Amino acid sequence: MAEVNTKAHELALKQREIGVAEFFARNRHLLGFDNKRKALMTAVKEAVDNSLDACEEADILPEVIVDIVDLGNERFRVVIEDNGPGIIKKQIPNIFARLLYGSKFFKLSQSRGQQGIGISAAVMYGQLTTGKAAKIISKIHPDEPAHYYELQLDTQQNRPEILKEETREWKKDHGTRVEIELEGSYIQGSQSIDEYLKETAIVNPHVTIIYTNPKAEQFVFARASEEKPKKPVEIKPHPYGVELGVMQTMLKQTDAKTLKSFMMNSFERVGDTTAKQICENSALLPETKPDNMSREMVEKLVEGIKKTRIMAPPTDCISPLGAELLEKGLRKEINAEFYAAVTRAPEVYRGNPFVIEVGVAYGGEQPADQPVRLMRYANRVPLLYQQGACAVTKALMATNWKAYGMQQSRGALPVGPATVVVSIASVWVPFTSESKEAVAHYPEILKEVTLALQDLGRRLGSYVGKKHRILAEGKKRDYIQRFIPHVAEALKELIGIKDTKKVEDILYEILEHTRGELEEIGVDNPEYDESLAKIGKDEKEEESYDD
Amino acid sequence: MAEVNTKAHELALKQREIGVAEFFARNRHLLGFDNKRKALMTAVKEAVDNSLDACEEADILPEVIVDIVDLGNERFRVVIEDNGPGIIKKQIPNIFARLLYGSKFFKLSQSRGQQGIGISAAVMYGQLTTGKAAKIISKIHPDEPAHYYELQLDTQQNRPEILKEETREWKKDHGTRVEIELEGSYIQGSQSIDEYLKETAIVNPHVTIIYTNPKAEQFVFARASEEKPKKPVEIKPHPYGVELGVMQTMLKQTDAKTLKSFMMNSFERVGDTTAKQICENSALLPETKPDNMSREMVEKLVEGIKKTRIMAPPTDCISPLGAELLEKGLRKEINAEFYAAVTRAPEVYRGNPFVIEVGVAYGGEQPADQPVRLMRYANRVPLLYQQGACAVTKALMATNWKAYGMQQSRGALPVGPATVVVSIASVWVPFTSESKEAVAHYPEILKEVTLALQDLGRRLGSYVGKKHRILAEGKKRDYIQRFIPHVAEALKELIGIKDTKKVEDILYEILEHTRGELEEIGVDNPEYDESLAKIGKDEKEEESYDD
Repeated sequence: MAEVNTKAHELALKQREIGVAEFFARNRHLLGFDNKRKALMTAVKEAVDNSLDACEEADILPEVIVDIVDLGNERFRVVIEDNGPGIIKKQIPNIFARLLYGSKFFKLSQSRGQQGIGISAAVMYGQLTTGKAAKIISKIHPDEPAHYYELQLDTQQNRPEILKEETREWKKDHGTRVEIELEGSYIQGSQSIDEYLKETAIVNPHVTIIYTNPKAEQFVFARASEEKPKKPVEIKPHPYGVELGVMQTMLKQTDAKTLKSFMMNSFERVGDTTAKQICENSALLPETKPDNMSREMVEKLVEGIKKTRIMAPPTDCISPLGAELLEKGLRKEINAEFYAAVTRAPEVYRGNPFVIEVGVAYGGEQPADQPVRLMRYANRVPLLYQQGACAVTKALMATNWKAYGMQQSRGALPVGPATVVVSIASVWVPFTSESKEAVAHYPEILKEVTLALQDLGRRLGSYVGKKHRILAEGKKRDYIQRFIPHVAEALKELIGIKDTKKVEDILYEILEHTRGELEEIGVDNPEYDESLAKIGKDEKEEESYDD
Repeated sequence: MAEVNTKAHELALKQREIGVAEFFARNRHLLGFDNKRKALMTAVKEAVDNSLDACEEADILPEVIVDIVDLGNERFRVVIEDNGPGIIKKQIPNIFARLLYGSKFFKLSQSRGQQGIGISAAVMYGQLTTGKAAKIISKIHPDEPAHYYELQLDTQQNRPEILKEETREWKKDHGTRVEIELEGSYIQGSQSIDEYLKETAIVNPHVTIIYTNPKAEQFVFARASEEKPKKPVEIKPHPYGVELGVMQTMLKQTDAKTLKSFMMNSFERVGDTTAKQICENSALLPETKPDNMSREMVEKLVEGIKKTRIMAPPTDCISPLGAELLEKGLRKEINAEFYAAVTRAPEVYRGNPFVIEVGVAYGGEQPADQPVRLMRYANRVPLLYQQGACAVTKALMATNWKAYGMQQSRGALPVGPATVVVSIASVWVPFTSESKEAVAHYPEILKEVTLALQDLGRRLGSYVGKKHRILAEGKKRDYIQRFIPHVAEALKELIGIKDTKKVEDILYEILEHTRGELEEIGVDNPEYDESLAKIGKDEKEEESYDD
């Protein structure tokens, strides 16, 4: 039989395991390293996000130093140093030179990183493009020495290769410093490191960032508040979100001796009564041994859970910005006429709690004839790329902004002098790719963003409507006032009054009386009149386009 | 020292490896399983793509049977059966129940699958949502028995779990059949299985697909051509695309004894002369031992390669559709007035050859007041999701379609009665996520798509322009002709001619003479006049919007 079926045998010769690092090395655009400009930004972002997460976990007010040195020939040295808790010696190589290694994947609580890919991907990218090892130094206590490593990533094995390790003196009490050399391109502007750091500072007012750009210019984003954000609590999964296959695995792995205790130990919001209820609704005995359950029994359990009323998951696992901070950030950043922000109540997708917050800054010097500027955040990290792929963008475009006084073509971003901020906070943000640039289109998330934007839109619409009304009223008064002197002149002749001035005054009084006082809108902007004029014009254009 | 630094030690307790299957199980939207509707489509797509790849590799005209059975309660049984070469017994569990396992990742030649993730992801999704094992049967030769497996995927280990294995009688000569039970939702329309299979048939005319949908309706997409597409040849990497880090790994792994023989054996387009040239430009001896080279030497080698003129990579590794087939497919699918297609010459990104092809069908019954319909293909696979994230869409939106007679708002899809097809064929298509729905924004790809669309646009523009001219001319003649009888009547009275008919004839002759004959445009469509009228109107609207 050896000679038959050569084709299937021939194909089989090439079928083998693909290393996860090999996979990502070839697909490095999945990790945010598609091009030189983005690569430089992504490397900085992954390191800074890690620093902020580490500080928050250790209850430290973060102070992060970002140094980018232009080495010429499209090479850069990126250095990020923090005052975080440090990393113990044994774990340094794994954290920095092994993909899919970390702590955040396994716990349900809000953090910037969640995959254990980011920083090791930056190390791998540096190595691929320059062949240079990453240099790490970390210290966990004033009395301990600092540990220094030079690391590469073995892409076939996905394991760290240690080129050098030693203890060193480091004058810091504790913290971590990572240095990566990589191919990149530094351009300032909308998707740059500068922008990323600036937007990060806006929603993280408790952070100090000292940034030296490749032109050797230093920027200090100083801490604006000593108050740390509320520390998110770790939670267990909620029974509603757990799928059959996952439940099977959990049942296999549990130490619990009975189904009832398994339910109580492994899930949020399941106490004695709820656990009993679930068993009853599933037609399963509370004493059933978890490791003895057949697929059919697990299916009954999952169905039984659906039939049971269970409290919504706790939300102290999430630390949203708060409408107040969001609006404050907008006021600090954008010179506008009208500001508003909305924080929605927490919702759940696939068992994961999440909160949507939105804000708007309208008018001022923002261009009236261009699509609104959209700023997206996920767990306090600005998302600068892949706007088109993001659920947030989809919800924004699907909202009817004409109803709120903005122009909009079918399925496009609204056009108007506004900046819209959308922020999602969750124990697990579902991104469309490992590079964490866009939020996946989960129906629950799309719905929440839409509802938040509609709420915001109504507030905006009532402002814009008022503005338009006042504008229209102003114009009418203008016309009437223009004729008052002529009417007064005519009246003077007709009924022989001498004091024209007095007639005019009476006419003005009548005008005031019949049309009411001109409403006030809160505007403290010198561009006010000009922007009003603009808006009036835009509205007309929009109408003619509708026909 | 044990009591110090609890925080770093505490954090370290949770730092561990994340299994690749655990990672993708939680991030299953990365694999195309975001929601029930898409999940059903993705499962079918992954299985069909594999079947077509296998048949083509074995030089078999593919015949694929797709059966989808509605089991109620949002559960479906998906069955895909092919007449491919089959899979040898030992590899069946790995191919179907292990992520990142396969043959296509390691060879540079065009194929639909390339990651070794797709079908095992479908198996995993079925298992997560229904707890059911996948059932596989495969046979590699008429004289061999068929092998039957029931498989699950151990998500912690990323290894197959074999629940049942046996040999079976199967009346097929060779082929593979996979059966997966999963949670899904069946909806017909633009992003459905029906659409995916129809679009697949259009660009794969050598394929027969027999499809039974969940409503038990059968559709047969019969083979339209017995001619198989040119079989793509496997190539080695081209020296230009290889980065420093990859070069280091290749040098470590090679069996070659000298740098020169390494260059000749490992790369395309490097013969004796080119290899010598590269060594000279790198200031390295041709006899250098590959495994002895320092990072600095490898860097010199990579720089030396850049300085050497090397022939472009061969392109028989790619099998584009061809402009002719593309246009034929459009004619078959869309009832329009004007068709055109363009195939670009091969280009290279990161060492990977690729070819862009574009086509357009314009006019006919297509709606004139909506964005053009965009159909995207990658290696003959239709891309139905994530249009907004795709490099193809970006290039289409960045092209100035007003110059070619279409409406377009800034940065939006053009509006007009047209369908645009863009197809990329490559040995490695860079997708924005593992679900392979959108092409990543590599500058080389964006540029090629743009150039192709501009070429197409010019052809379209000259047609649309001609159409507008003829429309305008027709209108003018219409006016003149309307007045001819009145002029004739007047002339009759003025100069006393009796035969009005003759005067009219003479006037028509003069008109014909001075204005020339009415141009012909190739229109065999009854909707012709109506669509002409529509287009005239659209153009006016566009102009007014421009102001």
